[in-house]
This record gives sequence, C-alpha cells and structure tokens, in this order.
Amino acid sequence: MNIKEKAILAHQEWKGKIEIVSRAKITNREELAIAYTPGVAEPCKLIEQDPSLSYTLTRRGNLVAVITDGTAVLGLGDIGPEAAMPVMEGKCALFKEFAGVDAFPICVNSHDVDEIVRTIELIGPSFGGINLEDIAAPRCFEIEQKLKEKLDIPVFHDDQHGTAIVVAAAIINAMKVCGKQLTDMTAVINGAGAAGIAIGRLLLKLQVKDIIMCDIGGILYEGADFMNPAQAAMARCTNHAGRRGNLAEAMKGADVLIGVSKPGLVTPEMVASMAERPAVFAMANPVPEILPEEAKKGGAYVVGTGRSDYPNQINNVLAFPGIFKGALQARAKDITEEMKLASAYAIAGILTDGELSPDRILPDPFDKRVAQAVAQAVVGCVEAEGL
Amino acid sequence: MNIKEKAILAHQEWKGKIEIVSRAKITNREELAIAYTPGVAEPCKLIEQDPSLSYTLTRRGNLVAVITDGTAVLGLGDIGPEAAMPVMEGKCALFKEFAGVDAFPICVNSHDVDEIVRTIELIGPSFGGINLEDIAAPRCFEIEQKLKEKLDIPVFHDDQHGTAIVVAAAIINAMKVCGKQLTDMTAVINGAGAAGIAIGRLLLKLQVKDIIMCDIGGILYEGADFMNPAQAAMARCTNHAGRRGNLAEAMKGADVLIGVSKPGLVTPEMVASMAERPAVFAMANPVPEILPEEAKKGGAYVVGTGRSDYPNQINNVLAFPGIFKGALQARAKDITEEMKLASAYAIAGILTDGELSPDRILPDPFDKRVAQAVAQAVVGCVEAEGL
Repeated sequence: MNIKEKAILAHQEWKGKIEIVSRAKITNREELAIAYTPGVAEPCKLIEQDPSLSYTLTRRGNLVAVITDGTAVLGLGDIGPEAAMPVMEGKCALFKEFAGVDAFPICVNSHDVDEIVRTIELIGPSFGGINLEDIAAPRCFEIEQKLKEKLDIPVFHDDQHGTAIVVAAAIINAMKVCGKQLTDMTAVINGAGAAGIAIGRLLLKLQVKDIIMCDIGGILYEGADFMNPAQAAMARCTNHAGRRGNLAEAMKGADVLIGVSKPGLVTPEMVASMAERPAVFAMANPVPEILPEEAKKGGAYVVGTGRSDYPNQINNVLAFPGIFKGALQARAKDITEEMKLASAYAIAGILTDGELSPDRILPDPFDKRVAQAVAQAVVGCVEAEGL
Repeated sequence: MNIKEKAILAHQEWKGKIEIVSRAKITNREELAIAYTPGVAEPCKLIEQDPSLSYTLTRRGNLVAVITDGTAVLGLGDIGPEAAMPVMEGKCALFKEFAGVDAFPICVNSHDVDEIVRTIELIGPSFGGINLEDIAAPRCFEIEQKLKEKLDIPVFHDDQHGTAIVVAAAIINAMKVCGKQLTDMTAVINGAGAAGIAIGRLLLKLQVKDIIMCDIGGILYEGADFMNPAQAAMARCTNHAGRRGNLAEAMKGADVLIGVSKPGLVTPEMVASMAERPAVFAMANPVPEILPEEAKKGGAYVVGTGRSDYPNQINNVLAFPGIFKGALQARAKDITEEMKLASAYAIAGILTDGELSPDRILPDPFDKRVAQAVAQAVVGCVEAEGL
C-alpha cells in the first residue's frame, strides 16, 4: 500500500484525528455538583470579576483555534470548509503531540474578509490564540492584520510565518555550513504569495545583504506594474540594484534560492549560475522546483525540500507547536517579528556546529527539544518586550 | 469544605474541564505523512467530492458545539462570554462522560441576534450538531428558529427543550404514581420564559387536558396586554376557561405545579388548594419555589426539584447526552417535537411500575441505560419520520 491508500484507510478508522475528553471525574452526585451546577457558578463569578482568570479556570490558557476558510488547502485550492477539515484536524493533532497544546479546528463557511474577521473576533474569547491556516493570498494578509488589531490574543498565519521561521532557521545553518555570512548573502525568493512575502520580511530582519523576489511576472522591482500592494511593499526594500528579468536572471550570483512556487521551474544550469557553494530550498509540494539530485548536478552545496524522503525537510512542525506553547505560557498578546526571529535562531541552535552538515541543517521534526526551545525563545521575547 | 469551596479548588486544579487529544499516532515520518501532508490530501479530496463523508473522515459525526452568548448563565444573568465558559465546559464534559459524544464549548461575544446566528451558521460545517445554552429569552427563540431554518444539522436549545423533556418524563411517571391520566390532568407552569414555554409546548404534545401558564403579570390569557409574542402564542392554546389572576388563583384545583421561576413563591396553603394527590416540581435553582418539606406539609404527593440533595431531581443530564447521541448516530437534520416526546417516554420508561414511587419517579442521572434509551428513541423517530 502506498501513502495515499494508507491515509484513506487510517482516516476511515480514526473517524476524526482529534477527540474531546473530560478532565473532570463525574461519577457521582457530589462530583456532578462540583463540575456542573451548583458548584460551577463559583468559577463563573470569579471570571466575571476578573476575565483574566479565564486563562486558569477554563482551558483557555492552553487552547488554540486552528481556523481556515478552506480557500488554499494544501495544493488543492478552494475546496470548502468540510473538505478542509482533515488538514485542520491534523494540525490540531500535531499541536497536541508536539507541544501538549490543545487545538480545535474551525472551518468558516465564507469568502468575505470582513465576515471571516468578525466571526473569529466574536468567538475569540473562547481561545488563548488563533492559528490561521490555508487562507488564500492576498486575503490572508488582510484577515491577519485586522484580527491582530481587534484581538488581544496572539494571531498567527502559519502558512506565512511558520514557513518563514523554518526557512530562516535553515538559512542560518546553511550559511554556517557554506562558510558564508548572512550580511553578505543574497537570497532569491521565487513565489511572492503569502509564504514568499513572509519569508522575505523575516530575511530582512535577519539582515541579509539583499533579497530578490520573483513571481509570475518576473523579478519584483520598485514601480513594476504587475504587483499587488504586498508585493509593491516588498519591492521597496529588496532588489537594491533594481534588477529586472525572469527567475534565471534573478538566480545569477545568488547565494540562496528559496522556492515557494511550482514544480520544475528550476534547472541545473540555473543553479550553476549561482554563487559558490549555493543553497537551494525547493519547497513546492509534493514535487519541488528542482529535485535534489538535479540541484546537486548544478552544484548546489545544500539542498532542502518540503519532503520527508529527502534530507533537510523544511517542515512547519518545527515552529508552530513551540510558538504557541510559548505564547500561551507567557500569555503573549501578539506574535511579534522578534519572536519569529528568536524562534528561527532557537530551531537553528538545536544542532551544534559539530552536528551540522550539508545534509543536516535542521533538527529532526520528532526531536522533543525543538518545541521546548522555541517556546523558551518566545517566552524570552515576551519578558524582554514586556508584552 | 462546602461545595462552593470544593468547586473553586477543583477548577483551579483542572485548568479546564475538557482537553483535546489526538486519535492519530504521530511518532515517525511515515505516521506524519499519513496523518498530515502529503497523505491528508486524500480524505480532503474525497470530502470535496462528497461532503457527507465529513461525517466519517473527520470528527464531525460525533461532534457537537455547545454555544452560548453568555446572557443567561445559570441564575447569574448576563456575565459575558469568558465567565460563561466554565458552564459550557461542564456541559461538554457531561456530553462525553454520559454519552461518549465529543462536545466543544464556544462563547459568542455579541448581543445581536442576527450576528450570533450568522456566526453559528458560518462555523456550522465543522460540527454535527449545535447545542445552544444559557441564552436569554426571548432572544433564544429567534436564534434557535433562524438556525433551524439555515442549518441542516440538529439545533437544540437545552434550557428549553432539555428541561421540557425531563419535566415531561417526570409528569408521565408522576401521573402513574398519583393514579391519574395525562388527558385528565391540568398543569400550572409558573415562569413563562424559555423553559416554561418549551415545557408548555411539550405538555400540549403529551395531550394533557389543560395548562395554565403564569408569569410576573399573572395568568396568561388570550388578549392579555402583558405578554410577548411567544407567550401570546401559548395563551391561544392553553387556559381553555380563560382564567385570570395570580399564581395562587392558577393553582386552585391543578394536578401539577411546574415552577421555573423564583425561590419562595409558593406556600403550603397554595399547594393545599390543588387537586387530590398533587405533584409539585419546584425547579428554581438553587432555592426552589417551595422546599420539599413545605410542599409535603401542603399535601403534595410527589415533589421534585432541581437539586441533587432531595429525591426526584429534574436534571437535564437525563436528556441532552442521549438526544445528541441519537441524532448524530442517525444523522438527523433536526430535533423534532416527536423526538422530544419519544425521549420523554424513553426516560420515564427506564423505571418499571414496581420501581416507581412518590420519591422515585425518574432514573438516576448516573444510570447508564438512560442515554442509550434516549438515543434509541431519537434514532427510531428518524427512521419513522424518514428525516
């Protein structure tokens, strides 16, 4: 049986990948009176006087909502709220398994930005944090931005920021392995959608020398007429030399290629045109922009993909469980750029210099230290920023 | 320590009465590939083709949302979404403990009927049913009615219908114990709010001879100027003789008094004015309309309250777990009046005639047969009604 067949069978057997269990024992009248009426009135009254007690007297202090509108699910596109649910449940299962965080999946049946925002805003007080998932760009930017303004709990669009954090961690270690400095490095990002733009923003925070972003219309440059507002904002602080052209042109002399685009866009020749000892992160799923063996032919020194069957898997699971574990622990009101940067360094720092190699720039997703280190990094930021 | 102190301590220790656990084992790369990407794309695609598969390939088939706006929480009134959460979590814990149904609590931060309806409508596809809870009257009627029209999953306001079902079960058995026929019986319902009106509606289905409803303004009669629309509708099919006056007047000659109102409104003298061998269900919480010992002084033959420290506790937990267990099992699209009636008879039927006595007209809440019997009754209705 292949993975597809195994996945269908497993989902039929699970009948849902998450389950809600009671933490309260309710087997006799006294236990019922304590967990439900009349006893339950007491925690209610305490929270009414001080709503922050909702974090300790209810599950809120460990609870994240995983929310989608079902418009950009995996590579499947807009498949609707019911069909998006297996992915959301999977995410919730990972939150619990990797970080002990309770997460509940909600699919919102609307395509209207303001309606989605309002729905999430109204159910917000039930949760300690909001993980947005698989929402199409550019709508995802607006939804996240509006929610950050309206809610005083952390809001995090994983497809943007989770990906950006893990890519940043990969680049930090890849540059060590390649013997280069971040501040001397030029990165090409192919795919200026939600993930690509978030990666670009975080790489700016990493103080890389330059970034060149490409999309279907070619290299983004200031004044180009094919850009949406988010792309135009990126064009203003990237591509310092004002280069123009296609991806092949962008890659010439670059130190890192980051692909968050489509299968097969990159050839060994394009890799060969990069700087010495280049790194290639080809993350199109399931088929990358260039297969690792082809990238190596072109001279790539470090290669990463989104796949688990090649070395250096760039997997969001390294970031999001720890991010929310830390944010909940510190009761952060927001996920800041500093937290993302600190998380990237925390992930990168799991591997010692002696453990690093071209085929091992990221820790194993099942390494229990990762979520713990990321959570500590986030808690440290909250303490430092006084959030 | 009294129950209040025990409840606070227990809630501090629980840090939430529910928890979300993973049903999927995710400990290595293959398991990750099956539960999450790339394997999870397969159930997504199947559900996209046939949304009804969401009931078996995700948790939807066993999942209820417990939703409130926090406006009528216990006897505490409008305490807001955060403070309502301990009650909602308690309800979810009971769903699991009594019927194995997964239930998740959501508090909606709005007082606007249409906004609450729209919010629930938009998150509906994530659930197999909606249990509305602690929403103030008359708003609760409108919210429930609109949701029933918009959603094709069961919607059930427990404060109305759960209470009505258990009261109906109590009356069925009380009339047996008192040696009376339902069709000869007159019931007084004091408190024409959400619960009182739902009880009245279900007693009409039980074919009782007459019902007299009372509220602050006195007996409801056709044309009275103090009634809201829901009360006016009840006035049209109750109080056949057009009686007027206060509760004391209403109780004269009645067989059953059902109090869903305020503590201490009923005196032994008022009970003494009722028919022979009367039944008194005084459900104001935590202090009933009349204490059982006082009701007995007035001649009450059967007395029930909402309390666990007296015989004959009228407790919704006898109804809602089994109602949703059955509705989910049969994939009912609605909870109908027939299902409520069948559930009342199923609860009443747990006790044999030999087991029935004035101090035992309802099964124990911890009797495992109850949820099973109610679920079967609901499934039977779905099959009969072809819903």
